[in-house]
Amino acid sequence: MDQAEFTVRTQGAGLYEVTSELRQWVRGQSTAQGLLTLFVRHTSCSLLIQENADPDVRTDLQGFLTRLVPRGDHPDMAWLTHVLEGPDDMPAHIRAALLPVSLSIPVAGHAPVLGTWQGIYLFEHRDAPHTRRIAAHLA
Amino acid sequence: MDQAEFTVRTQGAGLYEVTSELRQWVRGQSTAQGLLTLFVRHTSCSLLIQENADPDVRTDLQGFLTRLVPRGDHPDMAWLTHVLEGPDDMPAHIRAALLPVSLSIPVAGHAPVLGTWQGIYLFEHRDAPHTRRIAAHLA
Amino acid sequence: MDQAEFTVRTQGAGLYEVTSELRQWVRGQSTAQGLLTLFVRHTSCSLLIQENADPDVRTDLQGFLTRLVPRGDHPDMAWLTHVLEGPDDMPAHIRAALLPVSLSIPVAGHAPVLGTWQGIYLFEHRDAPHTRRIAAHLA
Repeated sequence: MDQAEFTVRTQGAGLYEVTSELRQWVRGQSTAQGLLTLFVRHTSCSLLIQENADPDVRTDLQGFLTRLVPRGDHPDMAWLTHVLEGPDDMPAHIRAALLPVSLSIPVAGHAPVLGTWQGIYLFEHRDAPHTRRIAAHLA
Repeated sequence: MDQAEFTVRTQGAGLYEVTSELRQWVRGQSTAQGLLTLFVRHTSCSLLIQENADPDVRTDLQGFLTRLVPRGDHPDMAWLTHVLEGPDDMPAHIRAALLPVSLSIPVAGHAPVLGTWQGIYLFEHRDAPHTRRIAAHLA
Repeated sequence: MDQAEFTVRTQGAGLYEVTSELRQWVRGQSTAQGLLTLFVRHTSCSLLIQENADPDVRTDLQGFLTRLVPRGDHPDMAWLTHVLEGPDDMPAHIRAALLPVSLSIPVAGHAPVLGTWQGIYLFEHRDAPHTRRIAAHLA
């Protein structure tokens, strides 16, 4: 069994790919066949597996989330009560509730069995720069 | 490997924290380093990791879900077909589809590696009191 | 530890049950007590645990998702940029982001500890027929 922590420095809302860093770590461990679990240790960002080919897909994902859960200063969100930490904070918590906090991916031949088009992303929901930590477990 | 089942008695829709009960169980098992997996055995409630500091965050999360998936007697939901079990039933299934049924959290030093602000919740989506069961696995 | 891959042939958007196939596989493995993890190797379909009794529940789930994330040729989605692969493609990626890509279910007595009403589904989001692969891990 192996455990590690990965750090992602974010510069505003959006998707930050971590696939190659995770692949490299898995390749270096003694567990050739097993299960990789990722867990993000925050409540205002998410993990997400999504298409890694056309960047427009990530743009549109971000566009959808922004429409589904608008910022706190949008008229549609005037009912929010948790507003002291800024107009991006409570929407970030809501988006974090709707997207994964943990992911589990089988590993075979020292590699996660991702499909051809699957990339692993840290999805930041806050505006300000953050240092995000992802706990990884392989067994 | 250890397995257990936790019971949560709910009194209407909302978030019920189970963090301390789970922490205590993990602390008492022989597995010091491993992976904790939680699985809720129902289709009208969810598991959720969310902010455990300001209770307004939970109020707003509940407020958002109520707006995203209104009750069956709301005009916007007149298209629903599964209505025999009450106006809160089909919306509960939809909310359960959008939020996690399982969570996996690495464990180190006999404790889940939760971030500072992360709490683990049973999110009840039904109105009537229910006894909810969460299966836990640690290995 | 056991690993396998399951194939689901889909004929358009909707829920395809895989519970009995997975139960049968788990029953045939040497691991009597453990953890079953499922991972879908695509970015335009999902895994979902939902009610297996009244088929109207699945109809309404599909109805809700269609309203929440309309097709690309719907006026509400005119802002999409990733449109070259057809009006069902980008909405499929968005729906896949909102629903699970992986599920973890404890196993006891050679069976996943599903609740009485829980079934496991492959949720297809594309119109055209697809062959979908689910990686399974039991340990």
